[in-house]
Amino acid sequence: MNDNIIQKVRETTPLIHHLTNQVVMNFSANGLLSFGAAPVMAKAEEEAADMASNADGLLLNIGTLTAQELPSMIQAGKAANEKGIPVVLDPVGVAATPFRTTAVKNILDEVQPTVIKGNAGELAHLVEIPWETKGVESIGDGNADKIASKVAEMYQTTAIVTGKTDVICMDGATLHNDSGHSFLSKITGAGCLLGSVLTACLTTNEAIGQQALTAAEFYGLAAEHAAKRSDVNGPGTFLPRFIDALSLDPAELERK
Amino acid sequence: MNDNIIQKVRETTPLIHHLTNQVVMNFSANGLLSFGAAPVMAKAEEEAADMASNADGLLLNIGTLTAQELPSMIQAGKAANEKGIPVVLDPVGVAATPFRTTAVKNILDEVQPTVIKGNAGELAHLVEIPWETKGVESIGDGNADKIASKVAEMYQTTAIVTGKTDVICMDGATLHNDSGHSFLSKITGAGCLLGSVLTACLTTNEAIGQQALTAAEFYGLAAEHAAKRSDVNGPGTFLPRFIDALSLDPAELERK
Amino acid sequence: MNDNIIQKVRETTPLIHHLTNQVVMNFSANGLLSFGAAPVMAKAEEEAADMASNADGLLLNIGTLTAQELPSMIQAGKAANEKGIPVVLDPVGVAATPFRTTAVKNILDEVQPTVIKGNAGELAHLVEIPWETKGVESIGDGNADKIASKVAEMYQTTAIVTGKTDVICMDGATLHNDSGHSFLSKITGAGCLLGSVLTACLTTNEAIGQQALTAAEFYGLAAEHAAKRSDVNGPGTFLPRFIDALSLDPAELERK
Repeated sequence: MNDNIIQKVRETTPLIHHLTNQVVMNFSANGLLSFGAAPVMAKAEEEAADMASNADGLLLNIGTLTAQELPSMIQAGKAANEKGIPVVLDPVGVAATPFRTTAVKNILDEVQPTVIKGNAGELAHLVEIPWETKGVESIGDGNADKIASKVAEMYQTTAIVTGKTDVICMDGATLHNDSGHSFLSKITGAGCLLGSVLTACLTTNEAIGQQALTAAEFYGLAAEHAAKRSDVNGPGTFLPRFIDALSLDPAELERK
Repeated sequence: MNDNIIQKVRETTPLIHHLTNQVVMNFSANGLLSFGAAPVMAKAEEEAADMASNADGLLLNIGTLTAQELPSMIQAGKAANEKGIPVVLDPVGVAATPFRTTAVKNILDEVQPTVIKGNAGELAHLVEIPWETKGVESIGDGNADKIASKVAEMYQTTAIVTGKTDVICMDGATLHNDSGHSFLSKITGAGCLLGSVLTACLTTNEAIGQQALTAAEFYGLAAEHAAKRSDVNGPGTFLPRFIDALSLDPAELERK
Repeated sequence: MNDNIIQKVRETTPLIHHLTNQVVMNFSANGLLSFGAAPVMAKAEEEAADMASNADGLLLNIGTLTAQELPSMIQAGKAANEKGIPVVLDPVGVAATPFRTTAVKNILDEVQPTVIKGNAGELAHLVEIPWETKGVESIGDGNADKIASKVAEMYQTTAIVTGKTDVICMDGATLHNDSGHSFLSKITGAGCLLGSVLTACLTTNEAIGQQALTAAEFYGLAAEHAAKRSDVNGPGTFLPRFIDALSLDPAELERK
């Protein structure tokens, strides 16, 4: 982890525009505020591009996408590309229905993501590697390194395959992160909020591999730290402690 | 309570598709994850039926319904009926406006619910028994047994009237549940999340009366358990403890 | 603070209709329930006016407004004006995009708000006082008294400029509130939920200046009380304690 990246986020409070799913909006906003960046979530087609142009980073998450919202994502993405700010695409459940598959294809036809992040099943689908999915969840094991590598190559982007070990791949290089906690799989939106934290880290002037690795490692350490609090007895009590932990210094998290 | 039902949910992690209201999406998802099932919430008309066809159960909750979302509910409901998976209808605030009354009528014209659940005022409205409502809340007392019985008969379904005592009625039989805690009336979405837990229980291969009673009893016991934690001082601190309690074994809840 | 106002809310449980943003719906509903009023959030154009006609107060918050939702706000606002119930307008991020600026203008052309509340940047924009904004956040200092005074005069309303010191202005009189805590700026929707609590206080039969001041002061004191709990270590653990504190008696909050 590169502590400078965390520090820079907190010094600059980057504004991260979210076109994200309705299930996680509150959690993502609170988590990102605690981390030290500023969320905005403006979904109207009439303003999605304007808001992206005012922002420092853009997160596109298709978790509860409707046909009406797709143009907002594309216009915000194009505005972000034009301005040169980072764009993170989280293709939630892309393999689950033809609607999602087509929507992600439409986005990728018009928007160049800085990072594509998702679980193994989602990213496998983007490069036509067979994978079993259930709803928006990915199940089973597979070669995450290969999936990440193919996504990075095919979409000329940085790819992050999240899982017990997160795999980050760009320009032929591969990085791994093992921090994290099983509670993250028992709360909704853990992957979505990682997308927010990642977008914030991408606004700093550092190498993209370090930014992605720092986001993933910090996030997982925050989960480990929260899970160790004495009053955490399940996913419900984990949540407030996790939000708290996202505000801590990396050094505090490493001590646990 | 039939502990096997809880155990089976946790062994199979059924995928429950939700077309539910925006106020409770995050709470319902976290509560259902903690309970041991998997939520998915895909509202686009283009995929609502596909997602229902991939799911093990479907919950329709009209709390923040719009005219645009109604076709998604009907198509998902029809797909679920075709596949033979359980469908729970929660007609939130059905008596409050003509729009809601008509929407529920439209759903019931095309979808056969396995269970209709709601408070006394909502279910009374479905069978034209006079009742006073205030917004989406039901107030006052009445003969909940009679309401449940008429709903079960008229809609050829299992009816659950929630309240201080929950009444379950199907095939002329009536069951009652007295577990619960007053905090459930001080948080938003308590009835909505019960709908999610109930849908998960309906995916098990047991008698429907036992499934419904187990869901209601487990849910109420979880609330009682949470309310007894020493750090619970109001509805805010109740919430994380309640999410935790939904993950416990029935035996732990019965001990409180 | 006028304790009678709080007591009357709790005696009457006023029904507050919300057309508010998706980020804060759950938090606003839980906070308002804890405070002692009843939330309803019905956004369909087909029922927004009906629901407002059944309610005791109306909150319009444009945080995630879409073009499709604007008619619902206007129709609900007109119905509330006709019925004579209080209407609070929270023009979230009004200066951030032309879409928001026009939407608020459209609302104000057709609806007479009882109170307009917002941060200094938002209210400055309404009266064309220059101000720097970032997303939906207002940054920098300025003459909040002057802004509030101009909004009150131009829109013939009571104006509340929220900030470290809240400024309330109506009929040429100005009131100030200094209660509050920095955690309120680290959670999403703190201003939005204040709007809900305020709308509830406006349903009591007291002078509007006292209603507004009581809402702001009680809200800030609840935050101070929550922040002092021994298990609050950050914004995540602050949230449940804050929801709890909103249910307390004013006398308990003043003791902290």
